[in-house]
Amino acid sequence: MVNGIERPLDLLNNSKNKEVLVHLKGDKQFVGTLLAFDIHINIVLDNTKEMQNNEVKRNIGLTFLRGDTIIFISPASFSSTK
Amino acid sequence: MVNGIERPLDLLNNSKNKEVLVHLKGDKQFVGTLLAFDIHINIVLDNTKEMQNNEVKRNIGLTFLRGDTIIFISPASFSSTK
Amino acid sequence: MVNGIERPLDLLNNSKNKEVLVHLKGDKQFVGTLLAFDIHINIVLDNTKEMQNNEVKRNIGLTFLRGDTIIFISPASFSSTK
Amino acid sequence: MVNGIERPLDLLNNSKNKEVLVHLKGDKQFVGTLLAFDIHINIVLDNTKEMQNNEVKRNIGLTFLRGDTIIFISPASFSSTK
Amino acid sequence: MVNGIERPLDLLNNSKNKEVLVHLKGDKQFVGTLLAFDIHINIVLDNTKEMQNNEVKRNIGLTFLRGDTIIFISPASFSSTK
Amino acid sequence: MVNGIERPLDLLNNSKNKEVLVHLKGDKQFVGTLLAFDIHINIVLDNTKEMQNNEVKRNIGLTFLRGDTIIFISPASFSSTK
Amino acid sequence: MVNGIERPLDLLNNSKNKEVLVHLKGDKQFVGTLLAFDIHINIVLDNTKEMQNNEVKRNIGLTFLRGDTIIFISPASFSSTK
Repeated sequence: MVNGIERPLDLLNNSKNKEVLVHLKGDKQFVGTLLAFDIHINIVLDNTKEMQNNEVKRNIGLTFLRGDTIIFISPASFSSTK
Repeated sequence: MVNGIERPLDLLNNSKNKEVLVHLKGDKQFVGTLLAFDIHINIVLDNTKEMQNNEVKRNIGLTFLRGDTIIFISPASFSSTK
Repeated sequence: MVNGIERPLDLLNNSKNKEVLVHLKGDKQFVGTLLAFDIHINIVLDNTKEMQNNEVKRNIGLTFLRGDTIIFISPASFSSTK
Repeated sequence: MVNGIERPLDLLNNSKNKEVLVHLKGDKQFVGTLLAFDIHINIVLDNTKEMQNNEVKRNIGLTFLRGDTIIFISPASFSSTK
Repeated sequence: MVNGIERPLDLLNNSKNKEVLVHLKGDKQFVGTLLAFDIHINIVLDNTKEMQNNEVKRNIGLTFLRGDTIIFISPASFSSTK
Repeated sequence: MVNGIERPLDLLNNSKNKEVLVHLKGDKQFVGTLLAFDIHINIVLDNTKEMQNNEVKRNIGLTFLRGDTIIFISPASFSSTK
Repeated sequence: MVNGIERPLDLLNNSKNKEVLVHLKGDKQFVGTLLAFDIHINIVLDNTKEMQNNEVKRNIGLTFLRGDTIIFISPASFSSTK
């Protein structure tokens, strides 16, 4: 399940084209499909939804997110499973 | 639709001369035509409108925005579509 | 009108010796004539006026502004035109 | 017990595949298994639990955490032992 | 009056041994004689006065100010002239 | 007593394996034995205690602290002595 | 009195082994003898006193202060002299 994660960016690489939860400073949350990332953790999400209290606040589609404001990125398939 | 996005900056490149939504720290929002960007995510927008609660707060025309304050940049044509 | 803007700094270069609106973090606003800038977006303005609610709060004449605190710089001639 | 810690990153290296407590700016706390880290202190945790008042707030599974927001990382086996 | 300002630091160079107004983040203001500066905009002021509401709050004499906290530096001779 | 401190990091080097008080941004305080540090002032403490109002709030044992959040580090043996 | 200050760090060099006032972000103030500094403005103070409203709040003796949090450093002998 977590094979092949030698460096932090390996997780992002494994999550390409998969749905991820992105949590930003200021408690903004986005869910979307991870299309691309770079070493600054700038990312591009597709089908991005801004979430609030587990509900979709707004759809912002294809989006470029600056790494600077990101707290964590979590592949959605692993979330909320105890 | 999202072909050719290998790196995050590819989305900005694809969005040149198109309308984008730019969300800044402190919840400022701008809509304008993306004319230029650099690796610091400094950008130039034309026909820039500062938005508040989905209404135009003021027109600031041609504008240089420092990348440092940007949270996300989203091509407008993909926004608000579920 | 926006010809020749290949990179963000081109707009600053085109705005030299022209009046610009500078918006800082913390919602400070300045209007002045752009005399110089560098890659850190440090700028020098002449005839600088600190604005508040569209009124001149104080005149601070010739001023060095650190790029670090700048959110956007907009040539005044394009501002407030719908 | 603390042999072999010449440089700060040695502790992270010793904590690989072990449970760690991660405390972020803004008083967010996570517990999870440390899978990977880099020199920016970006880390990957598995079985990540967001904690609040010593209780599990939510499970976020496999997670990439940006080093920028981290205050401290403590191997859980050494915590809460006087 | 503003001849010879090609780059932002030229203004600081022209202001050496002259009185300047320095405005810091958090709305601290200092007035003093600019003795030295570097590319980080670290500066040394002599006869430094911390100002509050246009009054001298305290005299702190010779002072090293870190560039990091500076918003703007304005030669006093040009200030407050409409 | 303070012989041999030519550069700031010399004090940290002299404090290795000794108890230090570490004060973080946001007024967090830790006391622990300094095991390691690097040029980013990332440090590792052993027997770390989080302090609040001069009382132990919690024991977090062996801990990696990111330099970024540190305000000051003081060898405990010199503290509270007028 | 201020001879020989060509660059900002010259003032710190001249202040070695002398008492300085150090003002930090968040309005913390320290008084102590400057033993060492580096280009990041990390400093070591001896006989450090944390001040509050011009009174000694606590003695923290020998201390390493990270440059990142410093606003200004002023040699005490020049302070409070109009």
